[in-house]
Amino acid sequence: MDLEGMMRAIASEAQRAAHALAASDAAMRDGALIQMAAALKAHEADIIAANAVDVEKATERGTKASLVDRLLLDEGRIQEEASALEDLTRLPDPLGCVQEERELYNGLQLARVSVPLGVVCVIYEARPNVTADAAGICLKSGNACILRGGSLAAHSNEVIANILADAASQAGLPRTCIQAVTTTDRAATDVLLKLHGLIDVIVPRGGAGLIAHCVETAKVPVIETGTGNCHVYVHESADPAMAASIVENAKCRRYGVCNAAETLLVDESAADEALPPIFAALASHGVALHADPPAFAQARAWQATSGVPLKLFAATEEDWEREYLAPEMAIRCVSGEDEAIEHINRYGTGHSEAIVAADEDVIARFFAAVDAAAVYANASTAFTDGGQFGLGAEIGISTQKLHVRGPFALEALTSYKYLIKGSGQVRA
Amino acid sequence: MDLEGMMRAIASEAQRAAHALAASDAAMRDGALIQMAAALKAHEADIIAANAVDVEKATERGTKASLVDRLLLDEGRIQEEASALEDLTRLPDPLGCVQEERELYNGLQLARVSVPLGVVCVIYEARPNVTADAAGICLKSGNACILRGGSLAAHSNEVIANILADAASQAGLPRTCIQAVTTTDRAATDVLLKLHGLIDVIVPRGGAGLIAHCVETAKVPVIETGTGNCHVYVHESADPAMAASIVENAKCRRYGVCNAAETLLVDESAADEALPPIFAALASHGVALHADPPAFAQARAWQATSGVPLKLFAATEEDWEREYLAPEMAIRCVSGEDEAIEHINRYGTGHSEAIVAADEDVIARFFAAVDAAAVYANASTAFTDGGQFGLGAEIGISTQKLHVRGPFALEALTSYKYLIKGSGQVRA
Repeated sequence: MDLEGMMRAIASEAQRAAHALAASDAAMRDGALIQMAAALKAHEADIIAANAVDVEKATERGTKASLVDRLLLDEGRIQEEASALEDLTRLPDPLGCVQEERELYNGLQLARVSVPLGVVCVIYEARPNVTADAAGICLKSGNACILRGGSLAAHSNEVIANILADAASQAGLPRTCIQAVTTTDRAATDVLLKLHGLIDVIVPRGGAGLIAHCVETAKVPVIETGTGNCHVYVHESADPAMAASIVENAKCRRYGVCNAAETLLVDESAADEALPPIFAALASHGVALHADPPAFAQARAWQATSGVPLKLFAATEEDWEREYLAPEMAIRCVSGEDEAIEHINRYGTGHSEAIVAADEDVIARFFAAVDAAAVYANASTAFTDGGQFGLGAEIGISTQKLHVRGPFALEALTSYKYLIKGSGQVRA
Repeated sequence: MDLEGMMRAIASEAQRAAHALAASDAAMRDGALIQMAAALKAHEADIIAANAVDVEKATERGTKASLVDRLLLDEGRIQEEASALEDLTRLPDPLGCVQEERELYNGLQLARVSVPLGVVCVIYEARPNVTADAAGICLKSGNACILRGGSLAAHSNEVIANILADAASQAGLPRTCIQAVTTTDRAATDVLLKLHGLIDVIVPRGGAGLIAHCVETAKVPVIETGTGNCHVYVHESADPAMAASIVENAKCRRYGVCNAAETLLVDESAADEALPPIFAALASHGVALHADPPAFAQARAWQATSGVPLKLFAATEEDWEREYLAPEMAIRCVSGEDEAIEHINRYGTGHSEAIVAADEDVIARFFAAVDAAAVYANASTAFTDGGQFGLGAEIGISTQKLHVRGPFALEALTSYKYLIKGSGQVRA
């Protein structure tokens, strides 16, 4: 069978499994999750052995140490994966929820009820811990999953997926509700992306390059988890100490995350007062600044007065667009909230945007006009996270507007159907 | 400017207009709809004149009469379009709805609020009445629209879109919140389909070919309104008279609609009793039957007894897949609900599926296992319709599972954002 035939066969099996899963009850799915967790622990040695092969190959190929570290599975990580599966059983069943219920004019009883999406294909990089996580989330929400991980983790993924599929099958679910695609043929991913009608949704979990490739190639709907070019805007009514604390947290808490702030916008009228404490905070973390002329002048002056050195550069147009994911920040002075909103809607990626202000009218305007998944007033952008929002198991943060936006969890892997009961009604 | 540049310019304008629309209030948008309705009536003569040019060209080219009829705008149709715009003002504002509101552990006030999708591109065929309809629905839901109609209706569409854009602008909204793409260059559609990041969603409104092309070509998310290969399944517990009435209505009410039934499944054990009244009903409408061997034998026997001629063919595998949209129906005998469910999940398009049965357990199984947007018990599939479901202005019937499923209306053109108010919170 050729590659396309193989992928089609896997997806057809997944679709059949999905029909069985859709009719399964929560107790059965939770029971399978418990068995899957137990199986991971029972087969810990097999997983570590398979993982050692991947790690050895990766090291031989001269893979970067940080990538090898992501690839590595040890007892602790496997234990965490098993616990995550057990945790899922404590979340409410996302299926069978009656979202709407009413009697139509003709006596028909109409109900809108949550159901699984069907077949979910998760495409990820060389992080084998995603395998159990994605399989668990899909099973909890009644979806069959096709797991396409990075080739560096192929052995680990295959062994983990087989252990999980066996456990699900022992719990009475179709074994093919969890399938890993572990061929090293890179073309397999593109075949999967195009299986419209067999796969219901693609969930890419990885870097910007992976996501862009999925969006570019897929014929199947994609839940896009994009990049975060996030801003903090300090309005002239802001408390300078609060502004500095929020900017510091949004920029410096973790540099490599999508909810980190990348550009600071400050009202020019407030720059004198607002910028010095911000410079002090950012300088203490060694954050390099890319400033527009007024902010540059302020930074120079602060440096001269404070004696603290700043890594200071003149901002270019490119800086407004960059997601640094590093100890670097762009700074621009604006004439007021209108210019700030315009800047954000032009350069932002619709992820997380914050205003620091005391003026409630200005906050209301910012909330109404800024086009982003999460818009904050007087809080750090770092809170954009499924756990912080209380959503349970986060799958990702969507930067698209269709289906789900912002942090999303199990509910995002459901659709609904209308169930209509009659007593013989026909339409005139 | 080349075609891609032109389309990008239109989409960028739409995006700017979308930001203004998102911050507009319902009164302003409803006011614009009233002005748009008035403008259509005031410019009736201009519309009819532009339409006459389209109709003349189409006739010259030898376009089919049925297509020319769809193309034609007269006083009555323009009046209907104006009324539809006015009707929209009587629907509740889909924006600013607080879908969720709570205080997080750290005192942050989180609210999830409905917002427009942004830029909606509607792609349709030579039905110029869609122009005002789509513009109105998009404006009501705060979305900027790009209207790409069929080239046969280019003059009509251009004139209508200009009238509507002028009226919206007079009502204080950006003129570019309504833009028609009327170039006859067919490549324009494909450019639009690929403007990921500028257009938020593609809504194709038309036949299966148009929809398939959009799904195949788009990089922008598509709301797919697919075909309907719908089934009626008659269980052995069904009342034969009710079954015949539902089959007749589902098949014969209108042949060309996506909610029409195309295949009848009957329990073999009930065929003797259930089929004769169904044959009588379908024969009275001249419906041709494509029957599997047991149903074929039943039909032959009924024909001999009743003396009523049937258009009878042996069913082939292809018949299970066909959306006839015509006075034709496939019939298959099954061993019970399991086989019926399997048939439906294999050949159905996930649109509308009905069971006729008295047995509540069987109905419950059918409801749980059949994977479709609308699943009926003891009612005709003909009810799958936004108006029948009480949804207000229907845009289409989605056969995909992401974002919206089944009949969808204004709400489907919204997304949401999280608004989070704090008092200086930062994340640990």
